[in-house]
Amino acid sequence: MQKGKASLALEHPAYVTASASIAGKKEGEGPLKSGIDVVEQDPMFGAETWEEAESAMQKQAADLALEKGDIHRKDIRYLFAGDLLGQLIATSFGTVDLEIPLFGLYGACSTIGEALSLGAMCVDAGHADRVLAVASSHYATAEKQFRFPLGYGNQRSQSASWTVTGCGAVVLSKEEPGRMAKDQAQVRITGITTGRMVDLGVKDSMNMGAAMAPAAWDTIQQNFEDFGVDELHYDKIITGDLGTIGQKVLLDFAKNKGHDLSEKHMDCGIEIYDCEAQDMHAGGSGCGCAAVTLCALILPKLLEGTWRRVLFLPTGALLSTVSYNEGQSIPGIAHAVVLERFVPTAGRKEEGGAVS
Amino acid sequence: MQKGKASLALEHPAYVTASASIAGKKEGEGPLKSGIDVVEQDPMFGAETWEEAESAMQKQAADLALEKGDIHRKDIRYLFAGDLLGQLIATSFGTVDLEIPLFGLYGACSTIGEALSLGAMCVDAGHADRVLAVASSHYATAEKQFRFPLGYGNQRSQSASWTVTGCGAVVLSKEEPGRMAKDQAQVRITGITTGRMVDLGVKDSMNMGAAMAPAAWDTIQQNFEDFGVDELHYDKIITGDLGTIGQKVLLDFAKNKGHDLSEKHMDCGIEIYDCEAQDMHAGGSGCGCAAVTLCALILPKLLEGTWRRVLFLPTGALLSTVSYNEGQSIPGIAHAVVLERFVPTAGRKEEGGAVS
Repeated sequence: MQKGKASLALEHPAYVTASASIAGKKEGEGPLKSGIDVVEQDPMFGAETWEEAESAMQKQAADLALEKGDIHRKDIRYLFAGDLLGQLIATSFGTVDLEIPLFGLYGACSTIGEALSLGAMCVDAGHADRVLAVASSHYATAEKQFRFPLGYGNQRSQSASWTVTGCGAVVLSKEEPGRMAKDQAQVRITGITTGRMVDLGVKDSMNMGAAMAPAAWDTIQQNFEDFGVDELHYDKIITGDLGTIGQKVLLDFAKNKGHDLSEKHMDCGIEIYDCEAQDMHAGGSGCGCAAVTLCALILPKLLEGTWRRVLFLPTGALLSTVSYNEGQSIPGIAHAVVLERFVPTAGRKEEGGAVS
Repeated sequence: MQKGKASLALEHPAYVTASASIAGKKEGEGPLKSGIDVVEQDPMFGAETWEEAESAMQKQAADLALEKGDIHRKDIRYLFAGDLLGQLIATSFGTVDLEIPLFGLYGACSTIGEALSLGAMCVDAGHADRVLAVASSHYATAEKQFRFPLGYGNQRSQSASWTVTGCGAVVLSKEEPGRMAKDQAQVRITGITTGRMVDLGVKDSMNMGAAMAPAAWDTIQQNFEDFGVDELHYDKIITGDLGTIGQKVLLDFAKNKGHDLSEKHMDCGIEIYDCEAQDMHAGGSGCGCAAVTLCALILPKLLEGTWRRVLFLPTGALLSTVSYNEGQSIPGIAHAVVLERFVPTAGRKEEGGAVS
């Protein structure tokens, strides 16, 4: 059902039937290490180029999600997937062997939010019984493409983020009572708020948090408005990769509009690393940042009941080296989904609701 | 309603409420000149860089489609858009001012097919009353990115295609009886077949038609299988940009499977130029190729009643210069929509049906 300007309340929520995360060594040394399914020590993932490495990681994450859910790839109707590379080559070569009808997506680091949104919309509509949402990034492919050759040893500014080597894969399904064990908690997507681009003129590609924060706030306030709620409605409001500087900007934006998000806000870019001990500067970024944090931290916290309703909004900075070098600014975008805990035996009653 | 492996029969077809095409000088000198809404003689579209030129063209096409349909941008719920450039910068900077919630798509030259598919799925589901689908390409941005600097004057192989400078924008809406004049024909999307990647190992980026033809056939045969039809069901089966060589490959593939497509097949890449007189080698390509041909030729032919049911399947070659230079092959993909003529007074009866 359409809600307000840019949101949907799903009549038939999409259930997270399975999920998997694969990440690199540095991510495996951070706070999420116990939640990440596979930490790969070899940054090449056994491949010969960085791009093939990222593709291998996507393939591995997709396969593992299917395996964990005991789902055959023939039972996935659509694949919604993307990455940061020009022409989505990590996705193309990573998922071609799955032979699943593909919708290729580009939302910069917001891609897993875009994929979950479109995937859940398909499930809600009955257009698909089961879809797979995948997004990845790799530190080396991103540095090579957007910044400097690794061997150059370029010094990084304090506001810069570190591209996560990681991939998250999530299977979304219609309600499948046969697969739901009694009393076993589920996570489902019950609402969607689709982001529009917001460009306040930030031009510093080494400070993408500042470029994305206005878009994050735009989507959050749109979600509040469309559903007639505020921050009290959620246990957590979790952005993708604003990092420490972007987080400050977001909290300031919200405060100026009378919303105190300080207790509710989390950012995947801050959670995925121990930013100080690991010397990660502003935090993590990349499509894999939100995707891995979703699978390794957010879904488990919902399943165990620490949180019951989360607004999850991966954030993207829409730049390329061409646009940057031509003096263009960096529009931001943020795609939000409402993740809710649901326990089948609770009389189909929604478990969501703020704990505070 | 899900049909077979990869198709949907739309319970609530999506109506093409308005469309617009903008193209460059060379496209305006070709066979579609009278159908293209605006032929821009200035390849820079008044901008300072090629990329800004492509963005300006996207903006102009989107604005014109809305104007032609007498629709305010606030009445468009979602924008589905993409282009060929790394990180979709033509789209980002072209559509940011529209302030419409955006799903960024990458399907190479199949993008308008992907956009129409997802847009129609949204309309069918009631997730949106009205969406806008946009795809563009620009000869100079594509050459700069994928091939050689224009000033280098590189010689082109005979199998190479020419990237279309053009943009097509299409408004899809739910049935709006109030907007439908009696006896006035409409075009609507009634079915969708979503492509999967097909990679037969073609590695020649100057022969993309051959790389895409297997994917085109895969989607066509999937459409036939899912809907239980064959080529007789359609007045035309129109691919995006296979060009003259890709067309031969497609017809051969079909023939080997017992299907004679020779009378039914058309290719936007062949239609958009007078390939011989304009010396276009294999034909046109780029996201703009199928998008402009749709708006300037296919929709008019349906509206005037020359055709009543068309299978329209833009085709994409999933390569980047990185993947190409690393020796990867070129997977193809093709996203099909079924376009049908519909006349409101005909008792809501479908007008579709093969003429032969």
